[in-house]
Amino acid sequence: MSALRSDQRLAAQLRPLTLEPGIAPYASGSVLIGFGSTRVICAATIESKVPSWMKQQGVKGGWLTAEYSMLPYSTLDRKPRDIAKGRIDGRTVEIQRLIGRSLRAVLDLQKLGEHTLWIDCDVLQADGGTRTASITGAYLAARLAIQKLLDARKIAENPLVDSVAAVSVGLFKGEALLDLNYLEDKDAEVDANVVMTGRGQFVEVQSSGEESTFSHEQLETLLALAKSGLQELTALQAAFLQKHLPAPAI
Amino acid sequence: MSALRSDQRLAAQLRPLTLEPGIAPYASGSVLIGFGSTRVICAATIESKVPSWMKQQGVKGGWLTAEYSMLPYSTLDRKPRDIAKGRIDGRTVEIQRLIGRSLRAVLDLQKLGEHTLWIDCDVLQADGGTRTASITGAYLAARLAIQKLLDARKIAENPLVDSVAAVSVGLFKGEALLDLNYLEDKDAEVDANVVMTGRGQFVEVQSSGEESTFSHEQLETLLALAKSGLQELTALQAAFLQKHLPAPAI
Amino acid sequence: MSALRSDQRLAAQLRPLTLEPGIAPYASGSVLIGFGSTRVICAATIESKVPSWMKQQGVKGGWLTAEYSMLPYSTLDRKPRDIAKGRIDGRTVEIQRLIGRSLRAVLDLQKLGEHTLWIDCDVLQADGGTRTASITGAYLAARLAIQKLLDARKIAENPLVDSVAAVSVGLFKGEALLDLNYLEDKDAEVDANVVMTGRGQFVEVQSSGEESTFSHEQLETLLALAKSGLQELTALQAAFLQKHLPAPAI
Amino acid sequence: MSALRSDQRLAAQLRPLTLEPGIAPYASGSVLIGFGSTRVICAATIESKVPSWMKQQGVKGGWLTAEYSMLPYSTLDRKPRDIAKGRIDGRTVEIQRLIGRSLRAVLDLQKLGEHTLWIDCDVLQADGGTRTASITGAYLAARLAIQKLLDARKIAENPLVDSVAAVSVGLFKGEALLDLNYLEDKDAEVDANVVMTGRGQFVEVQSSGEESTFSHEQLETLLALAKSGLQELTALQAAFLQKHLPAPAI
Amino acid sequence: MSALRSDQRLAAQLRPLTLEPGIAPYASGSVLIGFGSTRVICAATIESKVPSWMKQQGVKGGWLTAEYSMLPYSTLDRKPRDIAKGRIDGRTVEIQRLIGRSLRAVLDLQKLGEHTLWIDCDVLQADGGTRTASITGAYLAARLAIQKLLDARKIAENPLVDSVAAVSVGLFKGEALLDLNYLEDKDAEVDANVVMTGRGQFVEVQSSGEESTFSHEQLETLLALAKSGLQELTALQAAFLQKHLPAPAI
Amino acid sequence: MSALRSDQRLAAQLRPLTLEPGIAPYASGSVLIGFGSTRVICAATIESKVPSWMKQQGVKGGWLTAEYSMLPYSTLDRKPRDIAKGRIDGRTVEIQRLIGRSLRAVLDLQKLGEHTLWIDCDVLQADGGTRTASITGAYLAARLAIQKLLDARKIAENPLVDSVAAVSVGLFKGEALLDLNYLEDKDAEVDANVVMTGRGQFVEVQSSGEESTFSHEQLETLLALAKSGLQELTALQAAFLQKHLPAPAI
Repeated sequence: MSALRSDQRLAAQLRPLTLEPGIAPYASGSVLIGFGSTRVICAATIESKVPSWMKQQGVKGGWLTAEYSMLPYSTLDRKPRDIAKGRIDGRTVEIQRLIGRSLRAVLDLQKLGEHTLWIDCDVLQADGGTRTASITGAYLAARLAIQKLLDARKIAENPLVDSVAAVSVGLFKGEALLDLNYLEDKDAEVDANVVMTGRGQFVEVQSSGEESTFSHEQLETLLALAKSGLQELTALQAAFLQKHLPAPAI
Repeated sequence: MSALRSDQRLAAQLRPLTLEPGIAPYASGSVLIGFGSTRVICAATIESKVPSWMKQQGVKGGWLTAEYSMLPYSTLDRKPRDIAKGRIDGRTVEIQRLIGRSLRAVLDLQKLGEHTLWIDCDVLQADGGTRTASITGAYLAARLAIQKLLDARKIAENPLVDSVAAVSVGLFKGEALLDLNYLEDKDAEVDANVVMTGRGQFVEVQSSGEESTFSHEQLETLLALAKSGLQELTALQAAFLQKHLPAPAI
Repeated sequence: MSALRSDQRLAAQLRPLTLEPGIAPYASGSVLIGFGSTRVICAATIESKVPSWMKQQGVKGGWLTAEYSMLPYSTLDRKPRDIAKGRIDGRTVEIQRLIGRSLRAVLDLQKLGEHTLWIDCDVLQADGGTRTASITGAYLAARLAIQKLLDARKIAENPLVDSVAAVSVGLFKGEALLDLNYLEDKDAEVDANVVMTGRGQFVEVQSSGEESTFSHEQLETLLALAKSGLQELTALQAAFLQKHLPAPAI
Repeated sequence: MSALRSDQRLAAQLRPLTLEPGIAPYASGSVLIGFGSTRVICAATIESKVPSWMKQQGVKGGWLTAEYSMLPYSTLDRKPRDIAKGRIDGRTVEIQRLIGRSLRAVLDLQKLGEHTLWIDCDVLQADGGTRTASITGAYLAARLAIQKLLDARKIAENPLVDSVAAVSVGLFKGEALLDLNYLEDKDAEVDANVVMTGRGQFVEVQSSGEESTFSHEQLETLLALAKSGLQELTALQAAFLQKHLPAPAI
Repeated sequence: MSALRSDQRLAAQLRPLTLEPGIAPYASGSVLIGFGSTRVICAATIESKVPSWMKQQGVKGGWLTAEYSMLPYSTLDRKPRDIAKGRIDGRTVEIQRLIGRSLRAVLDLQKLGEHTLWIDCDVLQADGGTRTASITGAYLAARLAIQKLLDARKIAENPLVDSVAAVSVGLFKGEALLDLNYLEDKDAEVDANVVMTGRGQFVEVQSSGEESTFSHEQLETLLALAKSGLQELTALQAAFLQKHLPAPAI
Repeated sequence: MSALRSDQRLAAQLRPLTLEPGIAPYASGSVLIGFGSTRVICAATIESKVPSWMKQQGVKGGWLTAEYSMLPYSTLDRKPRDIAKGRIDGRTVEIQRLIGRSLRAVLDLQKLGEHTLWIDCDVLQADGGTRTASITGAYLAARLAIQKLLDARKIAENPLVDSVAAVSVGLFKGEALLDLNYLEDKDAEVDANVVMTGRGQFVEVQSSGEESTFSHEQLETLLALAKSGLQELTALQAAFLQKHLPAPAI
């Protein structure tokens, strides 16, 4: 049986989840989410138009685009801004595509109408799990933004058909750990990010062992651990929305 | 005599100043500053090296660089990120150069030793005066960061030789107003940004009337109004530092 | 039980694998791989130096970098070159990072010595599965290039500790299919790419359902199907190397 | 009282102004302006259309855009072209925005009709004051270009409602100097650029002390000195236009 | 009289020409051309639209655009991709403009109708003469693509009014050589590229002596040598098309 | 026999050559050259260092680099700056490479010592022949700059081993014309640029017929015409240098 982790957690224990709504008042919906020391500003902004390629290709309904960025002071060594380097790095591209796919998986684009939902995730403090915190917070920001559309009667029905959350799991010194912090993530033999809906369906499973490989059995252990953590996150999301929405959350 | 302003202020009244330290815990010093609805994350990060051009040119001492950015959800209409447009716009360049000059005016680069002080100002909510709030907050973030250098005995003496703050003033429907909000700023006939040290010396005076011009007398009225506001901001900065620094603030 | 697929395959059947060595004679090792109509030039080039960041960070051993590109005439509608658009798109970045991680997972960088192994995958014809064909062919190109280092006695031992191959699987109209072609891939409800070593360990599992979600049971079905296909690809890789290498292939 | 300056001028003396019309015959109006050794090609070109954002926002009237560049051989050490560095530097952006605002301050955009006036300022030789020479010359180039519109009866009335000129002033070894050359500018404690109309109204006042600060009294001294220089420049502009325009200059 | 060249050729002898049709099956027409070790993928793709500038300027007919690239493994030292450097180098620009002009010289753009013919030349192996091989192969790819338009009755008549081919010639140690390989090209005193139609008219003559100069007489010698090689290439093109086209080639 | 040309010239007549030395006093050597209405600022600047690739490759001697640009007001319709488009266009790249090769052909890089000679050609007015005027003027600017090195005894011997000049010729309505102006150039069936040394050796011959082709005989006619014009230009260059150099010009 395992000893406590460096931050005194059990192997199957999430970091404390913190949620502060309204961090960016000019966004349609926003939340400052914390997975322990990892803190991400998640904002959802609604535009009353859709990308031009949708018009050109005759695609109906709305769209959702996600952008992700690490603020330069989010890491212990200052991280240069993308614009200073002139390009977005590969890791950022992967993450913002993952956030976008994860949210679109629970979003009925037809019911969204001719709106674009912009999801912005800016990391204020990075201690591992910034992409999973981003997805988990982005869902809440999106739900708050959707409420504004509903309240303004611009759409008739909530286009979010389920909730979505994400968590990381990994093998660290042979042990399966939930919700890795930076030090654990850096030295994990295998690292997986799992995105799941509130009803327990997978949206994405990304499991990778760059310096290592992993067996099917180990993957199963990691997926089971992720699912338990995701059920907990789903419950916390629902509680948050119950408090901050007029109507019952999905 | 003038009526109250749209936000119920008097002509010579600042918006409420709010200051929240530690918004970005991985920065060497940070503060979330609010000038009314305008809110800016100001972070100062210390690097133990200097730009390569200083080495090449044989320049001694340290350096300070400032970067400024508006987060995409800081405006009512979402503002695309610089990296999405592929370039920093002219306004951003002007502002980050102004912030850098303003801080360097009160910083003894020799006393800073071989360190670079990075100043990052990211606007969370923009309601006019983002550059003046940035300068006013950046001084506080820099002072907190310097304290870490002093506490770690990496430098012997505080290289900040004075405090610095900034405020906007403008002529709006012929009346001189202090600390313009977005609506006032947009329609002001003349707009000036004034940067002043704690001892009352000017660092920068930038007065411009794009669609209009202004007389020497009007400039004098604006400068006097700015000075009164800056004395108030200086006092609030000192009070903040007295509370958050072990030693008496400058 | 399912009907034949559009290209007359069974659900669990790979497309014909074709392998043509020496397509790029100036590379250290090269192969033109075909997964049915999908054809990719895979080339491995050895440089006798390592990236500067390794020197700076004091990291020992060698490095492997992968680049991926679709030639403009690889698709039925001409695809503009990256340089014409001025940037690499997000999908390309994801794929070249995946290829790099997959190869590094079976490469002992210490045993590679101070060499950089450049992996280039250029798609000549794209009919689905370009990333999995790239990984499968890149391993062969790398193995041929390594042989040149061994033959020239620049390294003492083969740094490739296992073989690696990749295949796609997906749910298409509810049925699990192996090695999706373009039309299947485009309309699949769930799409997974699985990278596995010759010894049957996973390197990467990436399963995604953009317009859909999937259950744990469905994931298991897809993984089992992928494993059977990967065993077949591993055997074909070994046969190829037996023919084209002086010593027995790994 | 002060000794003569390095170029034998008195403290309150302008450098010799030289003006050569028609330097760029294909522009609508052009002048080669010299402030002593500082020489700038100022050209104004008229396009019979306006920027697309004006159409989109429903803004009526014309527009004026300014661009500024230092030719690579304008400095004693060759200055790389913007395109060689891939970007416009911050100083250039500030200057071209300043030139644009200065000209627009005396230009009635409604009276300009649906025309864009392009102002190009290319520095042939840089000895301090390139931005003030640019503004002073750009007004003349613009006036000559406007005459072509008037002569061709494309507009009914001169849209330039006043003239505009600019000059630098600074504190150098404690003394207020007019129209700084490069060596004075480089070592000045305080540097101000003042843009004024022919009728004596300010357009811009930009006063900065990067390594230093300045008092309100010092600012007043500098502004008075600038005004005397600007009256002289205004008179020289008027004399030039009297000679080169059919009708009396504004 | 001269000895044999390093690759056992006579001075006036072409390298073996190899032609493999259909290398890129998704292109409208494609050929892998070899001039000895130099091998280039030449592909022609038809788009049923023309560039927007043609519409704007009211230009009728079709268009042809050429792009050229060296694959990173085409040289003995790996050549970084254009996108990795962020820009196309000057040599590439020159070559793709040359290819475009050469093909347009034998193409009746009116008869092409509202189509764009994209010519892509990607060098698989570079041993001198990549631009001349590109032109020679591009004509064949274009002819095959045109046949598809004819067969589909999208155009009534072959818009290619002649064939076109290219070859290099040079002075190497004072001797005029045909079809230079890399080592000859690198050390040639004078290097000329000659583009000629099947009927023997010149399309381009580019003769350059960077480290050297050349006389009119030497130019004549080179041109005569080029013409003899080009007649041979023209015959080989015709033979290829006779084999691969239903109708007699031009 | 032909009628007079649109600018009253004979077919074999150059436009008036004008030469104004010292146009850019901070360059090491400069000249404003006019070929009729075409006017180009040619400046040569000496740097006391060589490109880093020369050091890395162990190449001895000096270097010469040329840059070419059209000022935005050099054409009747304003031409956007390269930096506004973010890239140098293909035509510019071709021209600056041609200027560089032409000057290097008469420059002994060993005798230049460890200096870089920067050649900048900025077109002030474009009426055809800007590249040939640039080469012809650049030689003079380079010669003046070299004189400064000789006078300062930084080099012992003139590294320019010959003079160089360039002229365009073309077939216009079937007639061979010398030194084409813009209107002639635009409609010429064949256009050739010929670069020749003072001793009558060719440096470059570039002959192209984009919409047309040309016979060997026509090429000969054009070359003969170019040579007569180049002899005249060489004489005018020599006269200019005799006047502006202390020692006899080459």
